Amino acid sequence: MLAILSTASQVYAQATRPNVIVIFADDLGYGDLGIYGNPTIKTPNLDRMAFEGQKWTNFYVAAPVCTPSRAALMTGRLPIRNGMSSEKRRVLFPDSKGGLPQSEITIAKSLKSAGYRTAAIGKWHLGHLPEYVPTSHGFDYYLGIPYSNDMDRVKEGDYFKTLKEPEVSYFNVPLIRNTEELERPADQTTITRRYTEEAVGFIKQNKDRPFFLYLAHSMPHVPLFASEGFKNTSARGLYGDVIEELDWSVGQVLKSLRDNGIDENTLVVFTSDNGPWLIFEDHGGSAGPLRGGKGGTFDGGMRVPAIFRWPGKIKPGVVLELGSTLDLFPTISSLAKIPVPNDRVYDGYDLSGALISGAPSPRKEIFFYRDTEVYAVRQGEYKVHFQSQSEYAVNRDKTLHSPPLVYHLGHDPGEKYNLAGKHPEVVKSVQELLEKHKAGIKPVENQLEK
Amino acid sequence: MLAILSTASQVYAQATRPNVIVIFADDLGYGDLGIYGNPTIKTPNLDRMAFEGQKWTNFYVAAPVCTPSRAALMTGRLPIRNGMSSEKRRVLFPDSKGGLPQSEITIAKSLKSAGYRTAAIGKWHLGHLPEYVPTSHGFDYYLGIPYSNDMDRVKEGDYFKTLKEPEVSYFNVPLIRNTEELERPADQTTITRRYTEEAVGFIKQNKDRPFFLYLAHSMPHVPLFASEGFKNTSARGLYGDVIEELDWSVGQVLKSLRDNGIDENTLVVFTSDNGPWLIFEDHGGSAGPLRGGKGGTFDGGMRVPAIFRWPGKIKPGVVLELGSTLDLFPTISSLAKIPVPNDRVYDGYDLSGALISGAPSPRKEIFFYRDTEVYAVRQGEYKVHFQSQSEYAVNRDKTLHSPPLVYHLGHDPGEKYNLAGKHPEVVKSVQELLEKHKAGIKPVENQLEK
Repeated sequence: MLAILSTASQVYAQATRPNVIVIFADDLGYGDLGIYGNPTIKTPNLDRMAFEGQKWTNFYVAAPVCTPSRAALMTGRLPIRNGMSSEKRRVLFPDSKGGLPQSEITIAKSLKSAGYRTAAIGKWHLGHLPEYVPTSHGFDYYLGIPYSNDMDRVKEGDYFKTLKEPEVSYFNVPLIRNTEELERPADQTTITRRYTEEAVGFIKQNKDRPFFLYLAHSMPHVPLFASEGFKNTSARGLYGDVIEELDWSVGQVLKSLRDNGIDENTLVVFTSDNGPWLIFEDHGGSAGPLRGGKGGTFDGGMRVPAIFRWPGKIKPGVVLELGSTLDLFPTISSLAKIPVPNDRVYDGYDLSGALISGAPSPRKEIFFYRDTEVYAVRQGEYKVHFQSQSEYAVNRDKTLHSPPLVYHLGHDPGEKYNLAGKHPEVVKSVQELLEKHKAGIKPVENQLEK
Repeated sequence: MLAILSTASQVYAQATRPNVIVIFADDLGYGDLGIYGNPTIKTPNLDRMAFEGQKWTNFYVAAPVCTPSRAALMTGRLPIRNGMSSEKRRVLFPDSKGGLPQSEITIAKSLKSAGYRTAAIGKWHLGHLPEYVPTSHGFDYYLGIPYSNDMDRVKEGDYFKTLKEPEVSYFNVPLIRNTEELERPADQTTITRRYTEEAVGFIKQNKDRPFFLYLAHSMPHVPLFASEGFKNTSARGLYGDVIEELDWSVGQVLKSLRDNGIDENTLVVFTSDNGPWLIFEDHGGSAGPLRGGKGGTFDGGMRVPAIFRWPGKIKPGVVLELGSTLDLFPTISSLAKIPVPNDRVYDGYDLSGALISGAPSPRKEIFFYRDTEVYAVRQGEYKVHFQSQSEYAVNRDKTLHSPPLVYHLGHDPGEKYNLAGKHPEVVKSVQELLEKHKAGIKPVENQLEK
């Protein structure tokens, strides 16, 4: 599948640079893992990974929906800076002509230029025309689906029924290897298992050189599919079956690191692209104690599980500091000893000090973008909502909050007790921060409306 | 403080019978510990205890308020069987004349008769007249407060302000040693630390014989107090300070077991008496993903954290089976090889098989009593609500549900998606179970209305 290269320079790099694996789930909520409090889904591999590593409890994504969230993770930059967010079309669709511009530098591109072998396995959703696909963005290898697993829908009739009682044939999504279509529709009933086998194969083939593996599962985005051996096995129903298969997958990846003797030279990160898709009820996940879900700017939409593991390097524990998927680019760059390009604005921070030595996180704020606008800002423990809107695009019911809603997320993680009017200094400070932020944003071509 | 006894028979018992420690928190919610998903409270000792032992995620109390819940834990019998529940006065108050009848057999009395040394440290709340106190119910030793820490209130004025901005002097609650008043008002600012020191002292003094320690913290029931070293230290505010001190206390207890060489001969159980007191907002806890809180019969009122640890004996893992504090009496009796009395009805089940060998729990149902009536029943994964009522006694707004509300707690732990009408066979089965249960209940004298 992949050529194995081994040269002196790579052996040197392997000794000094960690392998990096980012495992990214789709629509998995803050409350969907055992270690994050789920009562009926068993995730022993992720629980153990968190116990051996760091479990972050205040970790965010840059957007509450798929495409912009992924663009942010991949580039370390807010989607507003590269046209990867839109109010009209919140994500890319099969008929979209846009994608992540070539001018952007992905984590893969940066690591590849420093000698890493790179692979993306799973869902991409940053553009499916030739200039936007993974192999055009720094990945040596790709296997996966180009956009969401509910797209290319061919089944007529009731939308909810189609998504909650799915057949593979309802969704004519292709499975792609590099740039070649392997299968259409992709057989989603085996897709998590096949991604996992690909990942384990990639690890084995590259055990002697530094590699970057981006394993972006298409699950648990509806329509839900679980492989044989998982289907009809969990107390949580099909959604639980799917999460327990993802947990198994994590276990397989970690086992392959041990089997290949590279466990102690590999950073593994597990996180999700946004909160749970609540309108699908028991086919959607749970934000646990947080308010709201996918699509919105309450924390349930944008705060996600985040587990970091690197035996012997990462200081085990629970971390309450702020972090973001925006921070993965600078953090991974730092750990791999690769400079971050200095020709553009980065929105991410280097979290390596927090990971390795328990230092405070340099991140002190989160901008809650819904598409192209900032709806809320977290600064330290306070979150100020200037506006809010129901989570789904079908209902454009924006509410302006004057005075802004103010929550103390340390004392009140569920955003229940509005402190509006009690902390004018907080609102003032946040407004200043937001004005400064907005002043640094330059207009760019919108990619999602193409 | 306590005489140390050491005889041949006790050495024999020590070798064959485990020590038992039940740590019981007051109003701590399902979502208040790190290992149960709390985002801003750090509980490393409880997290580790759960990881080394068993974390139960479907574990209930027998009543959503203090007195009846404690009566159930202590006797293995529903409060309806011994008069320890009432709609008019939901718990005991300082002017109450009733309490747990002498005809009841507590865990302590049973273990004491088998040679255990027994101590209760902390809140009792099962009667404060001489015939009802711990030393009249099988405990060799007692130190603690006789009822809730918000009672004997002497501060006039706004109730919520008094409880949320407390001073020790507002609550003239006595601290009792055995039957003697030591301090009044009890200095609550040091009470968790002092309970812990007592517990550690008791463990050390009894390390050579089997003992039973019931450590029933008065926290985190409002008014909240944390000791120096914890106050103003947690991200969650005062409530978090209090929980983090409880976590420290658990760490001290576990450390003392190691220090005294009895770690592998001691079962430690951690749980709570009911869900969080939500009306106190950030001074109340969190039920995590569950619905409702203290006082009510949605799961947030009656499902609690439950952690079991006994190194080398308990099979580590997460357990989704059903359990209840009612089960502690028969389970502890079984582990201590003491027969359960056969002259009365027990509502508890022996969970030792689930704890030791991972067997299924024998418990298949939960009766959700609100005071003297069953409001809901869980049978397997389904919960059927026949009626509900707002959580607090001040608001008597009972709602009859016809048809009954039906939730699948495996798929829907948050009781969000009512399946009424979809599973008539479930409702029928639950109704039969309930009728049979009711037929076995005999009228007794009410203790709380005395």
